[in-house]
Amino acid sequence: MRNSNRQWILKKRPVGDIKQGDLELVEQPIPVPGPGQFLIRTLYLSLDPTNRIWMSDMEQYMPPVQIGDVMRGGTLGVIEQSNNPDYKPGEIVNGIAGWQEYSVAGGAQKMAKGPAPLPAYMSVLGMTGATAYFGLLDLGKPQPGETVVVSAAAGAVGSIVGQIAKLKGCRVVGIAGSDEKCRHLVKDFGFDACINYKKENIRAALKRECPNGIDVDFENAGGDILDAILEQINMKARIVLCGMISGYNDKQPRPGPSLTNILMKRARIEGFIIIDYFPRLGEFLAEMSKWVAEGKIKYDTTVVKGIENSLSALNMLFTGGNTGKLLVQVSEE
Amino acid sequence: MRNSNRQWILKKRPVGDIKQGDLELVEQPIPVPGPGQFLIRTLYLSLDPTNRIWMSDMEQYMPPVQIGDVMRGGTLGVIEQSNNPDYKPGEIVNGIAGWQEYSVAGGAQKMAKGPAPLPAYMSVLGMTGATAYFGLLDLGKPQPGETVVVSAAAGAVGSIVGQIAKLKGCRVVGIAGSDEKCRHLVKDFGFDACINYKKENIRAALKRECPNGIDVDFENAGGDILDAILEQINMKARIVLCGMISGYNDKQPRPGPSLTNILMKRARIEGFIIIDYFPRLGEFLAEMSKWVAEGKIKYDTTVVKGIENSLSALNMLFTGGNTGKLLVQVSEE
Repeated sequence: MRNSNRQWILKKRPVGDIKQGDLELVEQPIPVPGPGQFLIRTLYLSLDPTNRIWMSDMEQYMPPVQIGDVMRGGTLGVIEQSNNPDYKPGEIVNGIAGWQEYSVAGGAQKMAKGPAPLPAYMSVLGMTGATAYFGLLDLGKPQPGETVVVSAAAGAVGSIVGQIAKLKGCRVVGIAGSDEKCRHLVKDFGFDACINYKKENIRAALKRECPNGIDVDFENAGGDILDAILEQINMKARIVLCGMISGYNDKQPRPGPSLTNILMKRARIEGFIIIDYFPRLGEFLAEMSKWVAEGKIKYDTTVVKGIENSLSALNMLFTGGNTGKLLVQVSEE
Repeated sequence: MRNSNRQWILKKRPVGDIKQGDLELVEQPIPVPGPGQFLIRTLYLSLDPTNRIWMSDMEQYMPPVQIGDVMRGGTLGVIEQSNNPDYKPGEIVNGIAGWQEYSVAGGAQKMAKGPAPLPAYMSVLGMTGATAYFGLLDLGKPQPGETVVVSAAAGAVGSIVGQIAKLKGCRVVGIAGSDEKCRHLVKDFGFDACINYKKENIRAALKRECPNGIDVDFENAGGDILDAILEQINMKARIVLCGMISGYNDKQPRPGPSLTNILMKRARIEGFIIIDYFPRLGEFLAEMSKWVAEGKIKYDTTVVKGIENSLSALNMLFTGGNTGKLLVQVSEE
């Protein structure tokens, strides 16, 4: 056990790209659990596009992280010491302990070790899997034979969305940022097609790969990609607005896409945040665990080691450096 | 009976504002009904913002009017001569006979004369009333106590939307283009408040009049007004996208509003066009006729006389010259 607790503190709100100095890595004493509390050693830290939102003071779905506070982040940890008879050393808990090596809590959600490796419970069987599952099925309502487009398709959410849509009998077209990612999604994950938006004209490529138009768009990117998609939607298309990562580093909020086709095609754009579905996570976990066990849903994980690398790792989400779920392994299991 | 048929022909697609010369008034012989056909004399011509869309070749929900064709328009007419035993002279029919004094048809929807004056069947008891009814109730789903905002509130659709929302127990805030229209909506139509967007700062005024935020937006305007509304929506807000008249005369399609708040508030934007609800018009007519008869829903009509004035009258929709439904009386009842 280390004798200090390294933490990433939000020093100032990033303007544009996140820069070294916006967050600072500091060393603090390892916290001591009080009566009824226990000490958690962080095993894995989840890195997500929404972290960038939490660093800002834009209108958002949770309070922003305050300047001077430990950066917020989803975590999986192991109990090291406990003053609470309900929580025993060695038990695994998940939560949002943030970007730090140790934390104390008086309660937490325990995680029974399942058949999948621990990181899977932070990706395909965790929040990102649930985001894909409920966003696509509840809002996108894909029907057999329909065409589903997913942007940021090689990401933790997008890669699962595409595979679920395939299970539902849809034509699935991914949009990703490299030929390698595209090949992987088609060859290994069963996407029907994948467009490298950095190389191809997105409008021409969508026309080629979606000859019957677009019925469902699971939107993680926003910006030009969303503009292009909306030009090719079908009647009553559903746009699941899950994220708009292309704009998270913008210094000024940018305008959105023309809504003309939303009107003409009687289509729908609906915002989606997974926290609304927490009461239904059991439903997701039951079905997704089965799919994963049967090999019907595959997943990628990019693991970066060491809490000190969290900030540079986060930037991989914006530069396209990761494939699938991006995690920091903070300490050994 | 006149001895010629005056028609408005689309000569070229308007660029920006509609100009004299984009359409041309011509005289043709009165058409002669063939076997099984009948001759209709147009009584009223409906003028609607969507007419501007039909003149363009933008992506739209019906084929655009072709150059050289009679301009499309909703009409109410009376049968003058008939070679069809099912249609008798003197019967009233509605349809889309277009911007002309006479037309022939082999079939048409007959209209039994109801208790309301004929023009009412082209407004509150016609397509514009149905647009307000289904758009608000089916897509907006207003709940008692919620705040409903409606733009172009003094128009044929907006003025009815606001009154239905009041019947459903909502706080109703209209947005219109003059103090006189605003006073009228509050005093005579029971709106809780109305904002003159040409005089007031729309953001500050919305904040003042929607202290609990905005739950439903019935959108007829688009542009800056929609931007401002989206900044003040509540969780799970419903944006009924019925029209975006502020942009119909734009030479270039403009970007849409930032979708950030749609994501953060898990809100929904949904396009709406009344033609999808034709199978359910009976349901609307039954309830709306009752409301009108009981004085619960009031309506305004602006009637311009003479087919020759159709084009200048249409521009009233874009300059704010009319209140309520805008009709051309083409001939005497």
